[in-house]
Amino acid sequence: MFTEILAPYDGSKNADRALGKAAKLADLTGANVTVLTVFRHHSMLEASLSMVRVQEPGSIDNAMREHATQIANHGKAMLAEAGVKNVRAFVRSGRPARMIVEFAEKHGTDLIVLGSRGLGSGDGYLLGSVSHKVTGLSKCPVLVV
Amino acid sequence: MFTEILAPYDGSKNADRALGKAAKLADLTGANVTVLTVFRHHSMLEASLSMVRVQEPGSIDNAMREHATQIANHGKAMLAEAGVKNVRAFVRSGRPARMIVEFAEKHGTDLIVLGSRGLGSGDGYLLGSVSHKVTGLSKCPVLVV
Repeated sequence: MFTEILAPYDGSKNADRALGKAAKLADLTGANVTVLTVFRHHSMLEASLSMVRVQEPGSIDNAMREHATQIANHGKAMLAEAGVKNVRAFVRSGRPARMIVEFAEKHGTDLIVLGSRGLGSGDGYLLGSVSHKVTGLSKCPVLVV
Repeated sequence: MFTEILAPYDGSKNADRALGKAAKLADLTGANVTVLTVFRHHSMLEASLSMVRVQEPGSIDNAMREHATQIANHGKAMLAEAGVKNVRAFVRSGRPARMIVEFAEKHGTDLIVLGSRGLGSGDGYLLGSVSHKVTGLSKCPVLVV
């Protein structure tokens, strides 16, 4: 019933729980699972950084991308350990909810599995707003864990 | 991975699609499925009816309950036709999102499956607000279809 599961992952506890459900659903359905970690591009953080003199804005992006890559790889490893055979991991920068939905549409996702809270809660989002936005914007079913 | 699926059902097209997913998940997991149709009690509609002289407020409740019962039974029949073995149907009155979450907690639900839009869209709710509220309030995973 599901063939391409997208698991947005930010390393939070809720995201871990969501990955666990994604792994079980993949086991039941034989679906592929794609881990996606989204980080916010420097330009989107400029407002909050405007009081700080940033010498090398590029280095912030690089650090964020590196951190996001570690998180995505951690998610991928968790899924592999849980027995999921076809796992990929991607890192993207942008607005989390929109990026998740856009990615899902491009990659033929037929189920998005994500934590109810966690994603984005650290950078000014209301708790849970990413999962709310994704469920509102997504054209495919969304499992909120 | 799921044993008790709750499928809030209002007879809308999205709710039909959600029931379809619930049926497939029940088939994969062996879970029981409970159909729940929530209608709004007369007292909650008083504001909108205040311009109308209601002779018998009780009769409105009865008519709404009867209509809700027909919807719930239709949902139950759809699931049975889809091959789900253990299906029950319930009707409750109250605020849809809160009632759904409360019902889920009382009945040991470990997955709620509902349409992204439809429920409540006819009585002053913003589109999708029931699914948003349920995902925000629920203690168990929610699949929004």
